[in-house]
Amino acid sequence: MNKNKKVNAAILIIGNEILSGRTQDTNTSTIALWLNSIGVKVKEVRIIPDIENTIVDTVNRLRESNDYVFTTGGIGPTHDDITAESISKAFSLNYEIHKKAFKILEAYYKPGEFNEGRQKMVWMPKDSKLILNPTSGAPGFSVENVFCLPGVPSILKSMLGGLKNEIVGGEPILSHTISLRTVESEIANSLTEVQNKNKDVEIGSYPFFQAGKLGVSIVIRSEDKSKIDTCNTEILNFVNEKKIEVVDRD
Amino acid sequence: MNKNKKVNAAILIIGNEILSGRTQDTNTSTIALWLNSIGVKVKEVRIIPDIENTIVDTVNRLRESNDYVFTTGGIGPTHDDITAESISKAFSLNYEIHKKAFKILEAYYKPGEFNEGRQKMVWMPKDSKLILNPTSGAPGFSVENVFCLPGVPSILKSMLGGLKNEIVGGEPILSHTISLRTVESEIANSLTEVQNKNKDVEIGSYPFFQAGKLGVSIVIRSEDKSKIDTCNTEILNFVNEKKIEVVDRD
Repeated sequence: MNKNKKVNAAILIIGNEILSGRTQDTNTSTIALWLNSIGVKVKEVRIIPDIENTIVDTVNRLRESNDYVFTTGGIGPTHDDITAESISKAFSLNYEIHKKAFKILEAYYKPGEFNEGRQKMVWMPKDSKLILNPTSGAPGFSVENVFCLPGVPSILKSMLGGLKNEIVGGEPILSHTISLRTVESEIANSLTEVQNKNKDVEIGSYPFFQAGKLGVSIVIRSEDKSKIDTCNTEILNFVNEKKIEVVDRD
Repeated sequence: MNKNKKVNAAILIIGNEILSGRTQDTNTSTIALWLNSIGVKVKEVRIIPDIENTIVDTVNRLRESNDYVFTTGGIGPTHDDITAESISKAFSLNYEIHKKAFKILEAYYKPGEFNEGRQKMVWMPKDSKLILNPTSGAPGFSVENVFCLPGVPSILKSMLGGLKNEIVGGEPILSHTISLRTVESEIANSLTEVQNKNKDVEIGSYPFFQAGKLGVSIVIRSEDKSKIDTCNTEILNFVNEKKIEVVDRD
């Protein structure tokens, strides 16, 4: 852990299927929650198509302005899987067979099954570091601060654990949620006052509908638990004054 | 309709709750599917935090490189709702009370309920065009090619219909899906050949797990139905040759 240092990341979702609306991305939320737990804050997310120039330019921009970049998608065996080749170009590295990845997949498949299609998955930027895949064999890879993961959510999820030692986070980002039976306009002014008194704490207000009833969740986020507690107390003060029902705290 | 012209859009999701992973974005898919149906292709999506400078810079970048920009989130009554003020700055317009929006909300709420918090929602960039809200009263707005919608998915959905006449799309983007009982590596080479023969058609390959079985969906996308038909025939040819089962066509 890197105490007192803010550590940022960007997520880059590569895939026409997300941009067309056909597939609902869920990887952003999976990666962001995991990063928060190890003290890394997601600063931006971009979703881009399977176009080489776009991938190269976007990766090069994001890796300069963020401590870490996580890409998802485009590392399978088909023609539209161009992430590994694009990352090679972004770093001006040869795109070549990764010997260790080759051995892993050769051992993973039955004799004769490690065909040409599957062999595409061991082509990577020269000297990539592998990200092991406990679900389906084919590894992801990293180059410097860029970590390339697959698009299939269940496989991606299973690979994050193995990355823990590669990522040096800051203080974990803590969060506390107070859910109220009210509407935003009832609490807007009081909440603004709390935010103004606690400028370095992130306070969000999110309306919800649950079981036919309206409510608002207030989310307080900070690396410092005592700051969260201060805001929590100030919020509960005006909530009690206004006689608003607290539905849930988390 | 703007025949033979490609029309592009960007989606800008504004909200810390998406970046933290707390909330799963579904608006991208809703907007993208709707845009496809009226001949607009989503070229990129960005998710950014509730920070004014970031919103101003990102909107200014996206509105120059896209025919349309759709923002979601940040137009409610609380302190973290800063989209309208940020868009005013992006266009160097005054941020002021929109008279028509004021009248709409004054009529929407019961006497005495149109309080200071709610009145924040009628502050907009000068001379904004309103986007009517059939669900909860508070309108969105547009300035030039930038359309600002709320973050709550059900409300956003209900507002898209009213936008139809504001957006001039090209040819609708058609799509055909063939779902196969196979794995990607079995079809990778044949599919590459089809893609190489039909370079201006977008062919995607997406593995899926359904009812415990593996499969691959091939998605063919183009504005030209005859091109989709050509690819479809070429794909079914190799599928039949390889004796692969077709699970579904859509």
